[in-house]
Amino acid sequence: MNKLRQELVALHAELVRYNLVAWTAGNVSARIPGEDLFLIKPSGVSYDDLSAESMVLCDLDGKLVEGELSPSSDTAAHAYVYRAMPEVGGVVHTHSTYATAWAARDEPIPCVLTAMADEFGGEIPVGPFALIGNDDIGKGIVATLSGHRSPAVLMRNHGVFSIGKDARAAVKAAVMCEDVARTVHIARAGGPLVPIAPGDIDALYDRYQNVYGQR
Amino acid sequence: MNKLRQELVALHAELVRYNLVAWTAGNVSARIPGEDLFLIKPSGVSYDDLSAESMVLCDLDGKLVEGELSPSSDTAAHAYVYRAMPEVGGVVHTHSTYATAWAARDEPIPCVLTAMADEFGGEIPVGPFALIGNDDIGKGIVATLSGHRSPAVLMRNHGVFSIGKDARAAVKAAVMCEDVARTVHIARAGGPLVPIAPGDIDALYDRYQNVYGQR
Amino acid sequence: MNKLRQELVALHAELVRYNLVAWTAGNVSARIPGEDLFLIKPSGVSYDDLSAESMVLCDLDGKLVEGELSPSSDTAAHAYVYRAMPEVGGVVHTHSTYATAWAARDEPIPCVLTAMADEFGGEIPVGPFALIGNDDIGKGIVATLSGHRSPAVLMRNHGVFSIGKDARAAVKAAVMCEDVARTVHIARAGGPLVPIAPGDIDALYDRYQNVYGQR
Amino acid sequence: MNKLRQELVALHAELVRYNLVAWTAGNVSARIPGEDLFLIKPSGVSYDDLSAESMVLCDLDGKLVEGELSPSSDTAAHAYVYRAMPEVGGVVHTHSTYATAWAARDEPIPCVLTAMADEFGGEIPVGPFALIGNDDIGKGIVATLSGHRSPAVLMRNHGVFSIGKDARAAVKAAVMCEDVARTVHIARAGGPLVPIAPGDIDALYDRYQNVYGQR
Repeated sequence: MNKLRQELVALHAELVRYNLVAWTAGNVSARIPGEDLFLIKPSGVSYDDLSAESMVLCDLDGKLVEGELSPSSDTAAHAYVYRAMPEVGGVVHTHSTYATAWAARDEPIPCVLTAMADEFGGEIPVGPFALIGNDDIGKGIVATLSGHRSPAVLMRNHGVFSIGKDARAAVKAAVMCEDVARTVHIARAGGPLVPIAPGDIDALYDRYQNVYGQR
Repeated sequence: MNKLRQELVALHAELVRYNLVAWTAGNVSARIPGEDLFLIKPSGVSYDDLSAESMVLCDLDGKLVEGELSPSSDTAAHAYVYRAMPEVGGVVHTHSTYATAWAARDEPIPCVLTAMADEFGGEIPVGPFALIGNDDIGKGIVATLSGHRSPAVLMRNHGVFSIGKDARAAVKAAVMCEDVARTVHIARAGGPLVPIAPGDIDALYDRYQNVYGQR
Repeated sequence: MNKLRQELVALHAELVRYNLVAWTAGNVSARIPGEDLFLIKPSGVSYDDLSAESMVLCDLDGKLVEGELSPSSDTAAHAYVYRAMPEVGGVVHTHSTYATAWAARDEPIPCVLTAMADEFGGEIPVGPFALIGNDDIGKGIVATLSGHRSPAVLMRNHGVFSIGKDARAAVKAAVMCEDVARTVHIARAGGPLVPIAPGDIDALYDRYQNVYGQR
Repeated sequence: MNKLRQELVALHAELVRYNLVAWTAGNVSARIPGEDLFLIKPSGVSYDDLSAESMVLCDLDGKLVEGELSPSSDTAAHAYVYRAMPEVGGVVHTHSTYATAWAARDEPIPCVLTAMADEFGGEIPVGPFALIGNDDIGKGIVATLSGHRSPAVLMRNHGVFSIGKDARAAVKAAVMCEDVARTVHIARAGGPLVPIAPGDIDALYDRYQNVYGQR
């Protein structure tokens, strides 16, 4: 589990490197393989000050199991996702600028880039507005992403939640979500977008999910 | 007091890290707890060259008490805030890009993000145009922020002043002010914004002020 | 060849430094002088983890000749360019933000900057939409750039391919492509652009190609 | 003179730090006090590779006096400025993004920020379109800046030239020019700008030129 704790610290550094987070607003969690537990960032701690030991262990109800610090204030949303989606091994939350801008307009990001077809298989959807403090955010994430190709959801007036088979995949989805949110925003600011044919989106998505990277 | 001086150097480095300042244009000050004194950046000195010793000690009239360098040209504004608002322990001034852009239009930033409800409790207000050289800037800051939830004010055609219970809280407010100024600008550039209901803003603000972070 | 491998690692670091790539999406290749071979980035490997040894050697059909990792998923496009354009010694592919935004609108970048006249000799053209998996992307690049002054093409809904006499020149073209894509986008967002007379573009291009830099 | 050479290397690093230059496109020069000579960047050399020794010494006709490398291709423009404006001790040239965007529209930057009144004393003017290769660029710079408060000029379809009593002051002007070009662009993209009264601009400029910084 110490390796997973160290990886979680390194993945938070990726959020910083890609400018997805300001101050302490963003977090990564990782399910402990084979157990009803996950590790998550402590609440309100600077990314510079994170260590393997500071990561907090929670059960799938979001209750603290081990750790000296309080878990992220978004822990209930992460926990709900792990309870409802057993295939998910990692969850990320950010308020990254361009993705959150789409969320503030309640507008999904249209799929006009091959890189977006690769990773998201179509548009990136918007989830409902939900207050923090109960399971509403978690329910909104799960309702939006269940049966959807996209590993990322723009929660209305709030920010991004992304999921993956592990924490690294969820961070990649968060990085790519901001990248395409920015590119498509800028593209549309300059004039009408050219769509990609649905059949081509399907072909790109299928190939990327099955062929890309090292075997 | 040496610890406070070192913290002030580190907090100026946060202004640089978050790209809130160009060249020497931006400063942080910290009230000395229990005394009618505060520490502030010296005028026109590069952020790279700041040291604990270079920080200048002033009284609440903004007069130099200790230090070899002249205090920031914004010292009178900081001093006025400390005189008028005894609960304030830190003040920050920047010309951060997006926040200053709203200020150049004399337009408050509407609260359409949950992160903005958390930190600012509603819109970020605009203060009056004021020339440097007397107490006009300080008066404008205090008149705008007194009784307002927001810890940041956009001074018209000028830039941001933010306050906090200590210097770190004021820097956080300056960082978050630019972050939401940028996100809301970009969001609105793409189409109409979706508002957050006033009752939801109140609920978010109340929770964040009382529950977030470590106890 | 080891020197070329090391240079390729350093050139990938330039893609990162200039923010042309997110996660693993972008690659540089270099023809082995005098041989029908080229080196290229391995597929899906982080830029931080690249080493001289990890670079993959391929023949001009894009088949793996030497290396433990699979070559970039864009290898077929690079190989097609090397087969069709013997004067090309380096190829770069990115999804850099502003250039890709023009590509998502199927719109060439007009030449309104002297730096653009210098490097591109006129507009930066758009190539056709093409799916990955066969020679269509390579054919689109070659059809667009053959006989064109520009060393960069915006592939529709996709991103940038740039070429050069060596890999360093192709990376320079990719960097300058994003730089002018951004500046011209921002310029046009503020009002009508002022054109440069075609004869002046010719004069600038001719001078830069023949006089600039060290002899 | 070695101290001046080292300072010139450090000032080129400021251009990089503030993202004012891409690849090798931008340069700083410094007049040798009391002599008809100046030091300038060598042509086409990466900022990473600059050293005190690599800086090239030229006379006021822009002819090489000492150095193993060819001087910057912009040397003639720098030389013309030193010949025509004896009070100038440093010159900077960049293609910084937002400033160059205003130049591509042939549009001066209106003075709507107190920081802009401080440093530029009013609008930042546009100079004529001019080809490289003779004294036209130098003449355009001098014609525009002579008798103008602004230490920076936007050369049409080209980029920024800034001047100062020494190279450091010219670099500061280049940094602030891009900073205000960006802020005012973004401000105007969101709606009408609020002007600053001319008398207030005068008061701000006068104070900043005479009171700011350390004595």
